[in-house]
Amino acid sequence: MVRSVVDLNCDLGESFGQWTISEAPDDELMDLITSANIATGFHAGDPTIMNAVVQGAVARGIGIGAHPAYRDLQGFGRRRIEAKPEELVNDVLYQLGALREFTRRHGGNVQHVKPHGALYMEAARNTELSGLIVEALTRSSPGTAIFCMGTSETYRVAGAAGVPAVREFYADRDYDDSGSIVFTRRMRALDPKEVADRCVRACQTGKVKTQSGADIDIEFESICFHSDTPGALAIGRAIRDALTGNGIKLMPAAEVMAAAA
Amino acid sequence: MVRSVVDLNCDLGESFGQWTISEAPDDELMDLITSANIATGFHAGDPTIMNAVVQGAVARGIGIGAHPAYRDLQGFGRRRIEAKPEELVNDVLYQLGALREFTRRHGGNVQHVKPHGALYMEAARNTELSGLIVEALTRSSPGTAIFCMGTSETYRVAGAAGVPAVREFYADRDYDDSGSIVFTRRMRALDPKEVADRCVRACQTGKVKTQSGADIDIEFESICFHSDTPGALAIGRAIRDALTGNGIKLMPAAEVMAAAA
Amino acid sequence: MVRSVVDLNCDLGESFGQWTISEAPDDELMDLITSANIATGFHAGDPTIMNAVVQGAVARGIGIGAHPAYRDLQGFGRRRIEAKPEELVNDVLYQLGALREFTRRHGGNVQHVKPHGALYMEAARNTELSGLIVEALTRSSPGTAIFCMGTSETYRVAGAAGVPAVREFYADRDYDDSGSIVFTRRMRALDPKEVADRCVRACQTGKVKTQSGADIDIEFESICFHSDTPGALAIGRAIRDALTGNGIKLMPAAEVMAAAA
Amino acid sequence: MVRSVVDLNCDLGESFGQWTISEAPDDELMDLITSANIATGFHAGDPTIMNAVVQGAVARGIGIGAHPAYRDLQGFGRRRIEAKPEELVNDVLYQLGALREFTRRHGGNVQHVKPHGALYMEAARNTELSGLIVEALTRSSPGTAIFCMGTSETYRVAGAAGVPAVREFYADRDYDDSGSIVFTRRMRALDPKEVADRCVRACQTGKVKTQSGADIDIEFESICFHSDTPGALAIGRAIRDALTGNGIKLMPAAEVMAAAA
Repeated sequence: MVRSVVDLNCDLGESFGQWTISEAPDDELMDLITSANIATGFHAGDPTIMNAVVQGAVARGIGIGAHPAYRDLQGFGRRRIEAKPEELVNDVLYQLGALREFTRRHGGNVQHVKPHGALYMEAARNTELSGLIVEALTRSSPGTAIFCMGTSETYRVAGAAGVPAVREFYADRDYDDSGSIVFTRRMRALDPKEVADRCVRACQTGKVKTQSGADIDIEFESICFHSDTPGALAIGRAIRDALTGNGIKLMPAAEVMAAAA
Repeated sequence: MVRSVVDLNCDLGESFGQWTISEAPDDELMDLITSANIATGFHAGDPTIMNAVVQGAVARGIGIGAHPAYRDLQGFGRRRIEAKPEELVNDVLYQLGALREFTRRHGGNVQHVKPHGALYMEAARNTELSGLIVEALTRSSPGTAIFCMGTSETYRVAGAAGVPAVREFYADRDYDDSGSIVFTRRMRALDPKEVADRCVRACQTGKVKTQSGADIDIEFESICFHSDTPGALAIGRAIRDALTGNGIKLMPAAEVMAAAA
Repeated sequence: MVRSVVDLNCDLGESFGQWTISEAPDDELMDLITSANIATGFHAGDPTIMNAVVQGAVARGIGIGAHPAYRDLQGFGRRRIEAKPEELVNDVLYQLGALREFTRRHGGNVQHVKPHGALYMEAARNTELSGLIVEALTRSSPGTAIFCMGTSETYRVAGAAGVPAVREFYADRDYDDSGSIVFTRRMRALDPKEVADRCVRACQTGKVKTQSGADIDIEFESICFHSDTPGALAIGRAIRDALTGNGIKLMPAAEVMAAAA
Repeated sequence: MVRSVVDLNCDLGESFGQWTISEAPDDELMDLITSANIATGFHAGDPTIMNAVVQGAVARGIGIGAHPAYRDLQGFGRRRIEAKPEELVNDVLYQLGALREFTRRHGGNVQHVKPHGALYMEAARNTELSGLIVEALTRSSPGTAIFCMGTSETYRVAGAAGVPAVREFYADRDYDDSGSIVFTRRMRALDPKEVADRCVRACQTGKVKTQSGADIDIEFESICFHSDTPGALAIGRAIRDALTGNGIKLMPAAEVMAAAA
């Protein structure tokens, strides 16, 4: 695979009330990315924050995504909760709809859904959960894409159901040899240039080095970096500059998918 | 005013997790009413409960309303919170959208918004808050009605903005001489026949007796009774039977409004 | 083992705000039992409910226990959350202290701690978690007992640390052949007489029948029944009457432990 | 009044989960102050944060205070909630006990209670609320002090009940001519030297300038500055240095009260 167009996504709106989590202001991150995963209140994000981020994203023409999570403010959605899949699907729809209302207010629409943190990882391996989420999306939100790893059950199940599935390349996470990311709670500082080079190489060659030193194939339509990674703004700028400097165009995931179709 | 058609509404979905608040099951109440105000998670109602109630309401063709509240599970939305109006509007949109997603899933739509408890009373007297809610509705949800008291700022402001405003008659609450209801935390047991007679009289004569014994004019398109009033099912049945027995037709608020237009 | 004295415990205070979960009022249950596990706000129970239940328990001389849980109102503490053990211990201490303050107000003290629901089951099998809870208790609350299953890691670890460990016999739960209870979300209706007979037999012979039909040994100092089992009041009365009718004395767990020492 | 000894207090532990609110780390602030008001989970502060802050405070010999609030994470306890006073007292006791448990774990004790934000201001003017809090403290926590403004109902009621009441001077808040502080949501940047000079002057002359330019009498045993004021660390250091440089000794509030008695 050689990618000449790609989406660049980032989690946004992960403040809550008076608290901010990221050193990188949402407004500055939005100037770098083409899709935003916006926290929807269960792990972070309150309605006033959601309203502001959606307004900014609509103004910039960024692809807007709901970023639903386990109901766990204390754990920031990073702790798996052994809930029934059908309960979790209802939680996802609740959060998706909440975000959608702000896109209606500001004249935009919801491009995608990306489960957050532990829920993303759980869906990746849980066929029933992925299946129920995908089925719910086909009913409440036809045409809305789901973000996932290419190696996940989510990807497989979405494909089978005809739901657009956007595969992600994780710029700032380590990979294991199976092509799955290694989920870590705390991020070390990263060198923006190294991260950017890794993204360019993944686009140009379809390859990424794993923790073990192996070189594996990776397919994706979107590159993700994290707003709570130390130095997120510098990393985002480095990725953006390196990609465009190498002739790789950035556009929202829905356009990347349309270009490929 | 003589009403020959009227809506009958009730609050539903006010359970949370393992807890139920009403002795009257939502399913049985839905067989009596023509519009449902469905709790949206801030004072009661979790996503799984919302999903079930919406499914039942769509199946019965009942008018579906979002019932947003102050964020206050402990106080059941009955305690005023001194929040900024623009924050409250964002809270309302969040809850409205969450509910709407379940109507999308089940093939229905949102007929109306009715603020709950202390938020309903606050909006009634707070012109700025009512104005901001109404303005937000015109953007995110054009055509959606708002339920309110005929004496409220909400009614006045909605009318000026061209938002359909459905005035309520409270079957199981006392009125003061200003035409406002007397907000009480705990309900006494009521005689279903008395309540039903009061509704029929209000429809036929446009009059209601107040706490002081005065007889005042009351205008409304919808009759409200409360699912947590002791004996709610019997009250609901008595109202329904008395209305239809007196030739007054029951239909969802949107149809009542259309019939009047 | 033949038990001539035994404690009878029950979960109390599991309402929240306007919601009640049990058909059996706390006040009536308190007239039957000798120890109460009082919800501490994370799965159920708010400060006003805790205050009332503690006041009632002190007035009756019942052994008072904190009933801490995962932070999960929506799931009623029945869903395991993959949190770090040291975080969970802090959650337990927080809840224990909150309850203790009400015992200080009303002139009582905390007899025991009993983790609730999924946290109880997790501690039963998780040596590290049980060890950290037990160690924390020795520091903040020396002499306070911990309730657990006789087959649990909690029991083993508490014994090794010199923390009083009260083993429970579950009157209204099924046992498997390992001597562990079968955790179920929803209880079927039970025959009070059968339940009571099972308790008497367990006291007199130290035996209980399992789901498979086997007869296994069971050791315990306290009998537990659940306030949310349908017919809880009748079950509690039947147990109490059957025990006392067979000459088995009921007393708070701390006294049962002292009598055995 | 000329103060030769004074307490220096600050709010601590106001992070939540992954979020931090203050640019000033709790550990560095604790090196400056003699009393800490530690958030207790309702407006900020989770059990793991409380545990860490209490451990640090005990290690430094700082006076430990519970900083209970309205239950309002979203609003950071800065929004008044119209709850019944007896409910609020139960909320206060719950939070006080939760904090106390961590002092028991780490070998310390609770020196004082200071209601947070809107609850502090509500208690200041609400005689019934202040009375119920004070009465509850005399029962659950005899000898524990309450922090308040000298002009408040809290101070008057505590004095009448024999509860130690520690009056605060607010280093970083404006005063009105009644001697009450002006409650603001967002702080402007302050000049540390000006703030420090104001503290020294208040100690040496018992005077403070108000917003109107008047010079009023102020009596206090403790000086408060806020950890979320921009430049809090520099302000804290400037106050500490200016006080000690002028021969005014800093010690925990309980010792200041004992020295005065």
